[in-house]
Amino acid sequence: MEPLDLLVVAPHPDDAEISVGGIIAASRAQGMRVGVVELTSGEPTPHGTPELRRAETAEATRVLDLTWRQNLNLPNRSLQPTLEARGRLAEVFRATRPQIILAPYWQDAHPDHTAASSLCDDARFWSKLSRSDMQGDPFWPPMLLHYFSIHLRIHPAASIVLDVTPHIETKMAAVKAYNSQLIQGRSTEHPTVIDDIRDRARYWGWTIGKGYAEPLVNREQIGIESLSHLL
Amino acid sequence: MEPLDLLVVAPHPDDAEISVGGIIAASRAQGMRVGVVELTSGEPTPHGTPELRRAETAEATRVLDLTWRQNLNLPNRSLQPTLEARGRLAEVFRATRPQIILAPYWQDAHPDHTAASSLCDDARFWSKLSRSDMQGDPFWPPMLLHYFSIHLRIHPAASIVLDVTPHIETKMAAVKAYNSQLIQGRSTEHPTVIDDIRDRARYWGWTIGKGYAEPLVNREQIGIESLSHLL
Amino acid sequence: MEPLDLLVVAPHPDDAEISVGGIIAASRAQGMRVGVVELTSGEPTPHGTPELRRAETAEATRVLDLTWRQNLNLPNRSLQPTLEARGRLAEVFRATRPQIILAPYWQDAHPDHTAASSLCDDARFWSKLSRSDMQGDPFWPPMLLHYFSIHLRIHPAASIVLDVTPHIETKMAAVKAYNSQLIQGRSTEHPTVIDDIRDRARYWGWTIGKGYAEPLVNREQIGIESLSHLL
Amino acid sequence: MEPLDLLVVAPHPDDAEISVGGIIAASRAQGMRVGVVELTSGEPTPHGTPELRRAETAEATRVLDLTWRQNLNLPNRSLQPTLEARGRLAEVFRATRPQIILAPYWQDAHPDHTAASSLCDDARFWSKLSRSDMQGDPFWPPMLLHYFSIHLRIHPAASIVLDVTPHIETKMAAVKAYNSQLIQGRSTEHPTVIDDIRDRARYWGWTIGKGYAEPLVNREQIGIESLSHLL
Amino acid sequence: MEPLDLLVVAPHPDDAEISVGGIIAASRAQGMRVGVVELTSGEPTPHGTPELRRAETAEATRVLDLTWRQNLNLPNRSLQPTLEARGRLAEVFRATRPQIILAPYWQDAHPDHTAASSLCDDARFWSKLSRSDMQGDPFWPPMLLHYFSIHLRIHPAASIVLDVTPHIETKMAAVKAYNSQLIQGRSTEHPTVIDDIRDRARYWGWTIGKGYAEPLVNREQIGIESLSHLL
Amino acid sequence: MEPLDLLVVAPHPDDAEISVGGIIAASRAQGMRVGVVELTSGEPTPHGTPELRRAETAEATRVLDLTWRQNLNLPNRSLQPTLEARGRLAEVFRATRPQIILAPYWQDAHPDHTAASSLCDDARFWSKLSRSDMQGDPFWPPMLLHYFSIHLRIHPAASIVLDVTPHIETKMAAVKAYNSQLIQGRSTEHPTVIDDIRDRARYWGWTIGKGYAEPLVNREQIGIESLSHLL
Repeated sequence: MEPLDLLVVAPHPDDAEISVGGIIAASRAQGMRVGVVELTSGEPTPHGTPELRRAETAEATRVLDLTWRQNLNLPNRSLQPTLEARGRLAEVFRATRPQIILAPYWQDAHPDHTAASSLCDDARFWSKLSRSDMQGDPFWPPMLLHYFSIHLRIHPAASIVLDVTPHIETKMAAVKAYNSQLIQGRSTEHPTVIDDIRDRARYWGWTIGKGYAEPLVNREQIGIESLSHLL
Repeated sequence: MEPLDLLVVAPHPDDAEISVGGIIAASRAQGMRVGVVELTSGEPTPHGTPELRRAETAEATRVLDLTWRQNLNLPNRSLQPTLEARGRLAEVFRATRPQIILAPYWQDAHPDHTAASSLCDDARFWSKLSRSDMQGDPFWPPMLLHYFSIHLRIHPAASIVLDVTPHIETKMAAVKAYNSQLIQGRSTEHPTVIDDIRDRARYWGWTIGKGYAEPLVNREQIGIESLSHLL
Repeated sequence: MEPLDLLVVAPHPDDAEISVGGIIAASRAQGMRVGVVELTSGEPTPHGTPELRRAETAEATRVLDLTWRQNLNLPNRSLQPTLEARGRLAEVFRATRPQIILAPYWQDAHPDHTAASSLCDDARFWSKLSRSDMQGDPFWPPMLLHYFSIHLRIHPAASIVLDVTPHIETKMAAVKAYNSQLIQGRSTEHPTVIDDIRDRARYWGWTIGKGYAEPLVNREQIGIESLSHLL
Repeated sequence: MEPLDLLVVAPHPDDAEISVGGIIAASRAQGMRVGVVELTSGEPTPHGTPELRRAETAEATRVLDLTWRQNLNLPNRSLQPTLEARGRLAEVFRATRPQIILAPYWQDAHPDHTAASSLCDDARFWSKLSRSDMQGDPFWPPMLLHYFSIHLRIHPAASIVLDVTPHIETKMAAVKAYNSQLIQGRSTEHPTVIDDIRDRARYWGWTIGKGYAEPLVNREQIGIESLSHLL
Repeated sequence: MEPLDLLVVAPHPDDAEISVGGIIAASRAQGMRVGVVELTSGEPTPHGTPELRRAETAEATRVLDLTWRQNLNLPNRSLQPTLEARGRLAEVFRATRPQIILAPYWQDAHPDHTAASSLCDDARFWSKLSRSDMQGDPFWPPMLLHYFSIHLRIHPAASIVLDVTPHIETKMAAVKAYNSQLIQGRSTEHPTVIDDIRDRARYWGWTIGKGYAEPLVNREQIGIESLSHLL
Repeated sequence: MEPLDLLVVAPHPDDAEISVGGIIAASRAQGMRVGVVELTSGEPTPHGTPELRRAETAEATRVLDLTWRQNLNLPNRSLQPTLEARGRLAEVFRATRPQIILAPYWQDAHPDHTAASSLCDDARFWSKLSRSDMQGDPFWPPMLLHYFSIHLRIHPAASIVLDVTPHIETKMAAVKAYNSQLIQGRSTEHPTVIDDIRDRARYWGWTIGKGYAEPLVNREQIGIESLSHLL
């Protein structure tokens, strides 16, 4: 398999779309190879079924024109940073060899998300190990950035904000594909969950003088080659 | 005059070279038009004279291949953020129309530096005023970033770190042009001032996995268009 | 004069409406006595005149149902934290005796705003002085909070976020009263300045699970009497 | 059972009293329904026995006039954020349906405390799950705030500081009920553990200009409806 | 004059005692040479007179056993960071040649304090200038640390906390010497101003496991030679 | 066994040398008793064998003149903060009774390092437990500080920076003893891993005006007895 440029690790189907759907669409439009790996099925939920969730995911995948997508089927609601789960995810990194991993932020209200965040760090390290019994060749994903979820209404500074103005409709279409999660049975009064997702992208757009944007956090310093790359 | 891509505001001749000599050299190598405006002559100093300082500055200008350089001759050692100085600097911004201004960080041990930092903010705002008696047409420099000086040994996080590995020798040559300021009469024991300047660039290089680098701070969020621009 | 509950110090007419128009409207609806003091006329501007600006201000005052409003006519564009300006503002505090002062945040791109921020601190202290030749009786305004302007796209954490959902239309009507400043001659493409103002209120609403909100910063700790006051 | 307004999650009997005894007393005096759930017995300790600790707890409960109190008897000294413990605590949230949960801060020297902190987040999320085999109906506790323990002498900023001046004697009486933990066998030289607890409340009182107070941290922004609620 | 080890710069007589009276006493007890320079007379105040304030200052000086004390008689209530004031203070640094300067923190509610904070930085730099018309020989005070005042109830982290347990009574005696400022006409209800001063020292003592302590802030990193120097 | 003054907890052989080799050497030179406990063997690695790693460790121990060193042989690459591992490490603390523990920082790219960081906190607490079945007498290590590893290129502020200028060659000799880990098979182009280690120490030296230094972080405030201990 040809290596990915970008791999988003999502605890459940819909997390990648909600948090970085615009970055995914922008990266695809720039010719990057972009994948998503879900750790769990995300089910059960009040209005979902495994079949429905898979269909919604397929639609979002089509909308975003993803290069690659996979689901590890680790235990939903009970995800834990076990050694076994670490190995499974590390094998994904070895198989897809991404230049950049996008992982959930380490603070969240959903325990699957904090577990997923730990797993990303841990699996990234295991991915480079030689003399192991994991499948695939050793590979060190050179960059790991964090994205914000919607479960905790935190307000951190971003390390970097990506302009997604031309791709906001694509993002919102991918988000709305998850009808059973984000629309069905939800309040239709303003602000809806859909409003919240779009309006946060609007705010981040404002921070950089653009229409819509999405933030990422890096625990390390952000390096660039030229000031001409700044918006 | 054709607009500048980058304008460094330096309190004294040698501040631009010490703090962002590598960014200047890298930007020039990338074809950007780069200028430096000094606010004061920097003299008197223990080993300098106005003539000598001008000659050293000319040599550094040559080494860095600067597009444009000017000195406002505001009062050295007694620089203050007056309205008059603000107007003088705003006129420079109108004349050079830079896309990015690099200004001294707002915390420093040298009062000329903190005054210069305020002046950059203030003059940037005045630069865009219509219905004023300042020379030149209204212009809003779209980005203002801060660089660190050497007078206070602070350790802030950077917003962005620029790789200057291929240009470190150019930077150090420009720094050493200021013999009267940084070499003559200084201790020759390790670490010298010259060592300190090079070794800090080494550290910032380490933070992004490169040989040498220079940090910049932005009070606003850092926006980029593509993840492919990250090192 | 009966004391004010809340006094907003605005560098120019429109700053109070843009930054805390919702808090003003909410406080009025809660029966609080709310005033605004402008430090300067705000003119000249590209599309304004002194008469027009005064008329716009009067309309915004009417929309917000302000208890009290005054303009100190200090020098626009050249506001500085002089002792004389300090005394003028201190006399306003003595005359209006506000429980809470809302002042501009200390970091901004507009030098009038940073000067105004300093003046608020300084005048608050002078306001309590006995044995002075200032008019009015000594008075210590017990609380001073800071609001964010729109000139610098900073992203600080708030100390406290005020729900203004029921008052967003009032705020926007007050904002739009400043047609010469925020609408005339401005780009009509999305996002307009008006969009930016509304959408930021939307974001802060999201942070507390409401429709619209406005943030304030306190350098001191936030004290409350009962957890039942938290939203 | 009628829902609680406030539920304090304490790793051991005495943690609630030490950290938020004043908030508990103040909330009760304001008519709120307040509960405490301990995760472990807290025993063995050098001077305690299970019987003695229960008697001390009963006395503190009486002093604070708690609405509800329970002990989950999870393993003391070896508390871990297991799925089973998560389910047990989530069932408590479903049964008591608190508006606000007070949880231990996430940094501490006592591993039971950091485990308890994780459990609060995780159980809060599980509490809202439908289609689970947990007892009780799905319920999402709308607010979770953190309190500081005494094992690590950290100095974080508070999100909100509660005035407990009228209730300091009640707090101290509840604290002293734990004679086997905080008095017996402890140094009687100034400052004693009891001194430390009272004097920290004094400091936080100072931060808001009151006699005594207790701090809380929120990872999310603090929302309020009216500036009149600020002290 | 033999150089000082420590020089406290105080805006008014009583600031040094209130903020770092314990550090002064401890440093004297350790054999260090300690001075205080006041920038203004501190008068007028509601209950003070110049004569009374001088007498109170003399008593505090005696209690603290200061090596050196001087008052620059710059304008009280109207202190500003002028070049002339900068020169006056720089000459004090040249005359006393202190190893460590203690300066007021840069954020405060009292404009004299923020002006004094700027002046300390600026005068420290001027102190080292050659070829100037200031009195005395060039001297660079190697360390400048900041202390907290009592006008703003801020809660910053300290860079370093000094144990002053054995000297708390000396500190409080020096504080109480300023009867006209801190006792006369003040509320006698708990907590009094005197209580606040003592109790804050108690809190900082708690942070390092001691009885009483005082905090200092350094914008630079804190260097030490041996871990055995940590408490 | 006579108690240690300082105990470094290292996930693998070479972590102590890389991160705090200079502090170890300086502390030994000051007559302190210094130990290192490794949690795992560190093997397998691409170029190492258990025998080779032990030999390299012995050489580093000799170079640093360590008072005590031990390896717990917990599972390399799969270290987890289990209760069993916690007990093992707590018994080390009871046996060596260190005044200061140096633990890995809590954020890292290597999962063994974050697990080790948790274990240090947890074991420190267990070390003081009475009525347990752990070996040794209850002991509370009074101070725990954190050091930075090299796996994540973070840039935190230090709580305290130790001057290690006279000991830099000793540190680098101890580092180079781990030939199989840091030299063999590594790129020999500048900057090598060895360059990175030395140059970071150079940077921290710069922060305190010295040649070389190493940083430590304390979650609690840093207490000292005299300002004369500051560099």
